Parts: sequence; C-alpha cells; structure tokens
Amino acid sequence: MSPDRQPSLAGVERAAEKIAAILPATPLLPLDVDGKTIWCKAECLQPIGAFKIRGGWHRLTDLTDEQRSRGVVAFSSGNHAQGVAWAARKLGVHATIIMPEDAPQAKLENTSALGADIITYDRMSGSREKLAADFAEKTGAVVVPSFDDPWIVEGQGSCGLEIREQMLAQVGSVPDQIIVCCGGGGLASGTALANPDARMIVVEPEGWDDMKRSLELGTIVPVDKNPPATECDALQTMQVAQITFDILRDRNALGLSVSRDAVHHAMRVAFEKLHLVVEPGGAVALAAILAGKVALTDRTAITLSGGNVDRQLFANIIAEN
Amino acid sequence: MSPDRQPSLAGVERAAEKIAAILPATPLLPLDVDGKTIWCKAECLQPIGAFKIRGGWHRLTDLTDEQRSRGVVAFSSGNHAQGVAWAARKLGVHATIIMPEDAPQAKLENTSALGADIITYDRMSGSREKLAADFAEKTGAVVVPSFDDPWIVEGQGSCGLEIREQMLAQVGSVPDQIIVCCGGGGLASGTALANPDARMIVVEPEGWDDMKRSLELGTIVPVDKNPPATECDALQTMQVAQITFDILRDRNALGLSVSRDAVHHAMRVAFEKLHLVVEPGGAVALAAILAGKVALTDRTAITLSGGNVDRQLFANIIAEN
Repeated sequence: MSPDRQPSLAGVERAAEKIAAILPATPLLPLDVDGKTIWCKAECLQPIGAFKIRGGWHRLTDLTDEQRSRGVVAFSSGNHAQGVAWAARKLGVHATIIMPEDAPQAKLENTSALGADIITYDRMSGSREKLAADFAEKTGAVVVPSFDDPWIVEGQGSCGLEIREQMLAQVGSVPDQIIVCCGGGGLASGTALANPDARMIVVEPEGWDDMKRSLELGTIVPVDKNPPATECDALQTMQVAQITFDILRDRNALGLSVSRDAVHHAMRVAFEKLHLVVEPGGAVALAAILAGKVALTDRTAITLSGGNVDRQLFANIIAEN
Repeated sequence: MSPDRQPSLAGVERAAEKIAAILPATPLLPLDVDGKTIWCKAECLQPIGAFKIRGGWHRLTDLTDEQRSRGVVAFSSGNHAQGVAWAARKLGVHATIIMPEDAPQAKLENTSALGADIITYDRMSGSREKLAADFAEKTGAVVVPSFDDPWIVEGQGSCGLEIREQMLAQVGSVPDQIIVCCGGGGLASGTALANPDARMIVVEPEGWDDMKRSLELGTIVPVDKNPPATECDALQTMQVAQITFDILRDRNALGLSVSRDAVHHAMRVAFEKLHLVVEPGGAVALAAILAGKVALTDRTAITLSGGNVDRQLFANIIAEN
C-alpha cells in the first residue's frame, strides 16, 4: 500500500466524532501498581472485543457510494477482521476477510457471525497482502489494510483521544506517558497523534519485536525468519508500515518486548484486579509495566487492546500459579 | 436493625451525585440474545469488583464526625466487606468486617488489603448480625448492614439511576424491564426506586430463592433449613429485610431462580461476548435470560453485579463444554 495522504490529528478528531456517535467510550480503569495508579483503557469491552472497530468504522464510513457497492476485503488474524465485518454489516457493505488458518477459533467464528465471507491462508507461506490484492483486482473490492492506511491510523487514534479526555476528567490532567500494545503500530501511531505531549512506549512479544528494533535502528526491519510461536496472534505482523513507523520514530517512541510468562501474569492481574478478559496480545503493555520495564509516572496510561481469546487457553493461563 | 427512615428516590439521587463525584459510571454494554439487544450493567468493573462500593460510600459519607471516630463494623461474604473497607480507607475511618470463614479467598484477601480488620465466623452456626451487634456494643463502632438500611438501599440504587441515564443516552428511552441479581435485595430495591416505571425481576440461585418465595407469599419467609451448597456466595442471605421486601412487593416484582448450570453458561457468555469476569452470584440475572425465563422487551437491562471469583473456580467453569 502507498497511502496518498498522511494521517493527522485533525483526522483523529474527525474519526473520534464519528465513533462517539455510535460507540460509548470504553472505560479508563485505575490499577494500583507499586503505589502508583496506572490508567487502563479497556478496549476489550468494544462490541467486537477490540479497538479495531474504530479504524474499520472510520474507513468504511468514508468510502464513496460506488466503493461501498463493490464491497471491501481485509486481511487480519481476527480483530481487524471483526472490526471491518462489524462496520460493513452496519453499513450494508459486503466484506471478505482473509484470515490465517490458525487464527483463534473465537475470532474465526465471530467474524463469520458478523456476516463476512472468510478466506483462510497459511500464515507462514502465504502472503496475505498478495491474496487481498488479487481478490481486489478480481472483484473490484476495496482493500482495507489493518494498519498501513491513514484512515486506520486515525480511527485507532480515537482511542488515544478518549484516553486523553478521560484522564483529564478523572485525574485532572492529560497523560504524560502512554504504553501501547503494538503489532503493525496503527493503535500506537494514532494514539501518538492524539497525544502530542505524551511519551510513547510500544510493546511487542519477544521474537516479534520488529517495531522495537526498527525504532532502535532508525529504519524498518522485518521480523527474523522463523519467529518463535506466540500466543499474541494479534501482534504477529512480519513488518511494520512506513506510515506508522514514521510517526513513532519522529516521537522518539521507545520499544519494549515481553516474555510469554510476563503476558500470562498480566492476564491474571487483569482478571483479578480489573475483572477483564484480556487476550495475550492485548496484555503486553500491562506485562511490560508489571515486569518493571517502565518507569511509572503520575499520569501513565496503557491500552488493554483486545479480549478475544479461546476459552481453554484463557482457563489454562488463569489457573497457573 | 429497625431503620428509622425509609429509602427514597430523592435519597437515591443524592447518593448518585456523591458517587458520580468519585466513580465514573460503569459501562452499560449491549449483548445480543435471540435477536434482541439486552443492556448489561458491568458493576464487576467497580474498583472493588462489585456494586457494593455504592452503598458503602453513601453510608459512610453521611456518618457524623463523632461516628467516624468510633469506626464501623460490617458483616459480609466479601463484596459489601470490600465496599465498606474501600469507603472507610478513603475517609480515614477504621473498619472491622465480619466474614464467613468459607468466603472466597479473593474476597478475604482484597478486604484485608484495603486495610480492614477481619473477624471470621461459621456461616451455618454463627449469627453475623449478633456478632456485629456485640462488637458494636463493645467498641462503639457503627454497624453498616449489607442491605437492611436506607442508606445502603439508596446507595445501591445509584446503579439503577445510571442504568436509566445510560439507556436514555444510548438507546433513546429508559428501561421498561430490569433484571437484578438478588441476595438481600438492596440492589434490586434501590434500582426499583430509581426506575419507578420499570418492571422489576429479581433472580436468586436455586435453594436460596427466599425473596422469590416471599414475593409469592406476600410475606417474608427465610431460606429453608440446610440449603444446598452454592457458588453464589454473594447471594447467600438467609432472610431478606422488611425495607427491601416492601419496596419490591409494592412494585409487584417477579422472583426467579436459576440452576448452577445456567449460572455457568452465563459466566461463559459474559466471558466470550462481553470479555468480562463475572462471579457466579453476579451472573444470575443473565442466567435467567439465557435460560429463557424472561420475556425480552425492547428495553431490557440487567445487572452483572460482581466479578470477585477465585481463579481456579473461574478457570474450571470457563473450560467446561
């Protein structure tokens, strides 16, 4: 994808207005960590269980009537799939979603239940970008990328704007530091646009920390060949986009990575202290904090970005000591 | 207890104002059931994981300085305990909580972590009311009952007022039917006061359905001797109070009871569709709906009243087929 415009704060504000008209703000919940209160944005409470509903709605509502009639195609491990499918159903647009065959069962089922057609592919051998491009060429459908797109970045940024407004209302001042779960960087870069004065930290699973390494090197590098298995399916992007990387690099964002054990611990803390179901990929920001990787400030906010996790996996993790 | 005043809508409104000043409204989340949308009040997202923080705050903030200096004593299986302990800590008041020795570990630990002194007793042989009265006589502490008290009813009623206001904002009209989890009936009667035009339904676990039977008989009857074991510890009250019963009887409230299996199913649905951790006692209203015991209207609201459940029990229930 080569976007023909750059995402902007004005675009985030416009997205936030459209989204507020149909979706109440998710709560920003306090959590005590080492004597400090951190503020947790519970995006797992969105109707599709993840923040991806934001970008999907902002993009699809800006399609022309002619584009809507052709339908949309998206590739996603599941949360973006549901976001696009949800927006498409609400707007009466046909949606086709290209999903890895090993996506969590909950995500496959929910996407299908939202009325989208699903095409599966092998995550390691197939190119989802090529599959989507081929499908679009064949059918005329509009491709809705999961992060490499100005609308998607702006749409996800509405989450950051809500965090800002809720911190102001609940704490009395805007966040000085925001820690964001990062796959392709759509949520992180949009949140950065919405909070020009906050220190930005992005968190990835170990072995999938290409945004971290890209920020350290000052240029985009992909995930190593044969990356480790991870339960953080929502964060399994092989390479970030110029559009998301540029925003985070210009903001001197810090990249961190977290272990599987740290993610499990964060999921248990979210369960016990917040009574939220958070999926592994949605728990990495909290994991970084609980693992002591972030110096806490008085106004630290984090994203709990999704909650679509299969029952058995969640039960196993919650039951661990 | 013989309250010297009756709870009122004006009292609910005053409680709601005090509570809104320190606690953002919990979200009212949509859930699709059989083609209808029901609206779920996520009280498990309160800082103590249950609605009981409301009554605790309303009662303790209305204590005189002299009363505050003597401290408070409460009896509770855990959620009221945490509500009183939370309010007491915030106000600098000493709290002693009388808890059954078989209360969930999470509730015992959380109450203790909030700085309260805990006295345990045997649920089946000890009288918690007598223990509290003896303690109050000995120390001068003010007894804060868990439901038999006008402040507590009004405080919990603020939940009903939030439901009303959120339905109006999100749906365009107030609820016509509200289904409430019921132990002693504080939340149900307060919610009834806040919604004078809604049909009220209260739900209890099988074998602990004394409010249901009392409403059917028109007079208060206790739970049968040797009631069955239940995971709904939050709803294990041996007898409701005149103050809560009168309000619900005057409103022709309907009582329902639900099975253990229905509760487990509701907890799994809350997990998968809402990404919420709901404790057994907090899931009975949803269980009644999913079991087909309630005729759904276009503006049905329910309470998901708490989320304090031990990890192993939750994992076992979530992993069931």
